[in-house]
Amino acid sequence: MTTVRVTVTLKPSLLDSAGRTVAGSLVKLGFDEVKDVRIGKVIRLQLETYDEARVRAMCDKLLANPVIEDYTIEVEP
Amino acid sequence: MTTVRVTVTLKPSLLDSAGRTVAGSLVKLGFDEVKDVRIGKVIRLQLETYDEARVRAMCDKLLANPVIEDYTIEVEP
Repeated sequence: MTTVRVTVTLKPSLLDSAGRTVAGSLVKLGFDEVKDVRIGKVIRLQLETYDEARVRAMCDKLLANPVIEDYTIEVEP
Repeated sequence: MTTVRVTVTLKPSLLDSAGRTVAGSLVKLGFDEVKDVRIGKVIRLQLETYDEARVRAMCDKLLANPVIEDYTIEVEP
């Protein structure tokens, strides 16, 4: 069994309004070292067999929206 | 400037219904090597100064719900 971590984030050129809101709240709570926050999804897949091309296909078909999101695939040790 | 990645996931004992749904959809799309899916959040913080105790405080106060979620903190190179 292989554990694969897919991280899906908004493309850097797009405004992340949730992240912007969290950054503002953190500063209001006194964490004024916070300069920027971006929020994404992490999807942990348990796979019987690992094939990177197939995981890429899962991302393109279901896990991410390639128009507005980037994704990275990492195999967990 | 330090980039810190906070990963927030549901505690393993809790049912992740979104993950369950995604797993079912992937299997229906033909990815039958998928055995389990868990979905979490990844929060990328840009910090002027990094202090792990302060990031932990951000997690406990705002970024995670310690009753139902676990979090990990990683400093990005």
